[in-house]
Amino acid sequence: MPRIALVGFGTVGRSVARILSDGDRDPLVLSHVCNRQVERKVVDWVPPAVAWTSDFEDVLRSDADVVVEVIGGLEPAASWIRRALEAGKSVVTANKQVMARAGAELMQVAADRRLHLLFEAAVAGGVPIIRGVREGLAGDRLQRVLGVLNGTCNYMLTRMEDGQVSFDDALREAQDRGYAEADPTADVDGGDAQAKLAILSAVGLGRRIAVDAIPLRSIRPVEPVDFQYARRLGCTIRQVSRAEVLDGAGTDVMASVQPMLVPVASPLARAEGSQNVVVVGGPHGGETAFRGFGAGGDPTAVAVVSDLEAIARTGSTAPRYRRPAAEAGVETDFEASQYLRFVIVDRPGIIASLAGVFLRHGLNIDSVLQEPDWPKSALPFVVTLEPCSSRVLQAALAEIETFDFHARPPIWMPILPRGERCS
Amino acid sequence: MPRIALVGFGTVGRSVARILSDGDRDPLVLSHVCNRQVERKVVDWVPPAVAWTSDFEDVLRSDADVVVEVIGGLEPAASWIRRALEAGKSVVTANKQVMARAGAELMQVAADRRLHLLFEAAVAGGVPIIRGVREGLAGDRLQRVLGVLNGTCNYMLTRMEDGQVSFDDALREAQDRGYAEADPTADVDGGDAQAKLAILSAVGLGRRIAVDAIPLRSIRPVEPVDFQYARRLGCTIRQVSRAEVLDGAGTDVMASVQPMLVPVASPLARAEGSQNVVVVGGPHGGETAFRGFGAGGDPTAVAVVSDLEAIARTGSTAPRYRRPAAEAGVETDFEASQYLRFVIVDRPGIIASLAGVFLRHGLNIDSVLQEPDWPKSALPFVVTLEPCSSRVLQAALAEIETFDFHARPPIWMPILPRGERCS
Repeated sequence: MPRIALVGFGTVGRSVARILSDGDRDPLVLSHVCNRQVERKVVDWVPPAVAWTSDFEDVLRSDADVVVEVIGGLEPAASWIRRALEAGKSVVTANKQVMARAGAELMQVAADRRLHLLFEAAVAGGVPIIRGVREGLAGDRLQRVLGVLNGTCNYMLTRMEDGQVSFDDALREAQDRGYAEADPTADVDGGDAQAKLAILSAVGLGRRIAVDAIPLRSIRPVEPVDFQYARRLGCTIRQVSRAEVLDGAGTDVMASVQPMLVPVASPLARAEGSQNVVVVGGPHGGETAFRGFGAGGDPTAVAVVSDLEAIARTGSTAPRYRRPAAEAGVETDFEASQYLRFVIVDRPGIIASLAGVFLRHGLNIDSVLQEPDWPKSALPFVVTLEPCSSRVLQAALAEIETFDFHARPPIWMPILPRGERCS
Repeated sequence: MPRIALVGFGTVGRSVARILSDGDRDPLVLSHVCNRQVERKVVDWVPPAVAWTSDFEDVLRSDADVVVEVIGGLEPAASWIRRALEAGKSVVTANKQVMARAGAELMQVAADRRLHLLFEAAVAGGVPIIRGVREGLAGDRLQRVLGVLNGTCNYMLTRMEDGQVSFDDALREAQDRGYAEADPTADVDGGDAQAKLAILSAVGLGRRIAVDAIPLRSIRPVEPVDFQYARRLGCTIRQVSRAEVLDGAGTDVMASVQPMLVPVASPLARAEGSQNVVVVGGPHGGETAFRGFGAGGDPTAVAVVSDLEAIARTGSTAPRYRRPAAEAGVETDFEASQYLRFVIVDRPGIIASLAGVFLRHGLNIDSVLQEPDWPKSALPFVVTLEPCSSRVLQAALAEIETFDFHARPPIWMPILPRGERCS
């Protein structure tokens, strides 16, 4: 009969409390709710025996068996999780930053005490991807993970595509609907997905990578016109989080979070609105895809309560996960076909100038696309390149950016290949 | 250090042995292989300490901790699983017929002894759907499951669509590729999916239903022309397995396995070739979709080895799954829009005759579709009906079948609605 202390009573915390109070969750018992200025938070629909407190020390001293941490942010959450474990309490957390940055250390603290530290809610909300890769596909040796891990970005990109609205308008809509924070940096610039990808790399690929070593590229420069060109190429645009174990000598992982062109037939393209998708691949099972709601109080609470059910099922002694993830470096260079979109002040000789730079860097043009009916003073057009190193491409772009014909800076996005790796 | 006896050394058994012998599966140890006339089966790539036997009694008497049953079929598999459990051995099985028909009883035998009885491989091969619904979404209260659960049917239907080949030709292709048995009955007529759906109903919905109570309708009457009409309706055709908890007084489940029109944007339509897809829905987490390879030695072996890893992780005492499934009846009538395809010897008055029958039964025609360029002696055309009871429809069709204008018997298929229940 696990007694549960809920630490944090915001959107997710309230959804967890509601599910635990629906009358059919025996033997899970909500015993404590802890929140700053808790007197403003007290509700009458939880069981009357629940103790309300503003002081985390009360939780540590209590008879609760499990602490559910849903306050978010790195601190004090990480310290509180550590102290809960040291006090002999299992922990369920929805905290991606803590698990991405301090997860290995905290998992060791938990393992030393045979306590549970579960975090299904930290990645892709209600989609059971942590359990999927850690347990459901434990029989395989996963080599790659591709995901649409940020529902806010995905909502914005689908709005930009369907409504041909600008980035700023899409952001405003997302904020109006409560999908985006007042400061959208973590979502649109990739920090949120970066933390989730680091967790998936550790849990799914067995490779622990430094969060901040995963290169990020923002979706801010994406414009509605990019969706028109993407469509001509049979693609749409997604913020794609990607990690892949590199063959060969090392244990390194190629990883990135960035906007990419993805074929419309790819499961990544099928993430609609605020949905998340994760596709994993291994040598025995092939590609397996998971899709569902990655954010919001209720889906995230399902993940939290599923973790609580796991604790109820297995009892107070946590199972031993084998093979803790090995530390790995991040390779930031990778081969891919590339999409480059320029917005130029038109004049003769521009293609020749670009072609000269590409030639010097050994880059091969695959196609040049130009939609009609744009003004010559701000004319968008697209060049696609055959598969090339992103490092070489960036060197070429540094030269290209010095030309004086740009009306706006160019944008580049890798094109996810059709076929086995994204089918 | 679980010692594993592999019972059955066919395609799946060999794939399991190969994964267990790949040198990196400590502490899992393959200790025994049991197969009829085992001397024909011995291979040199398993560890030399493996004991080979043709006699299951040797396995029961052995020091193996876990029996992996991959012989298939109801008997002797069910008896052997029971005897293994009674001998104190945990069991991992890929056997859908055993788990659908004797699963409740065997799970009780296992639970009484705190032994593991795991069966991830019994449904959707390498797609971790059993763990997904039983553990990953344990925090929700799932109310419905929709799936493409038979890879052979799906291969055939996608071939009929893409290649416009007949059912017989698609079947021959599937047999040539090893996807279909010489006797394809269980696949095309639905018995295979029926067993899997009964398992998903028990594990995912908490409702145990009699396998044979799930109504089946074969994909045999589907013709290439149906895909042309389906496409005009924004749909494709899939063998859909469906179970949904009915609201109201009882605990009944609406369940069926049959060909259905599914919107091309539905995840069910995204099952390609021999893939499986399962979509589950609950009040808190919304719809969650799982997709991957549902058959074949390697994906199925991944599921078996993932179960073995779960045993290694949790140790010899199995977790207690709460809330064993409650017995439930099967409701076979359901409301849906309907697709009816007739092939007629054309003459005036046919639509009027049909319309008269529909009118008497209170059925409302939504559209009448007729592609050009078919001979008048065998003219296919389609009527779609507004949502109606399948029982009422069948009564109307019984009357319609007595008309003398049919060149071939009519076919009817429900149309899966767009939107929340299949999005």
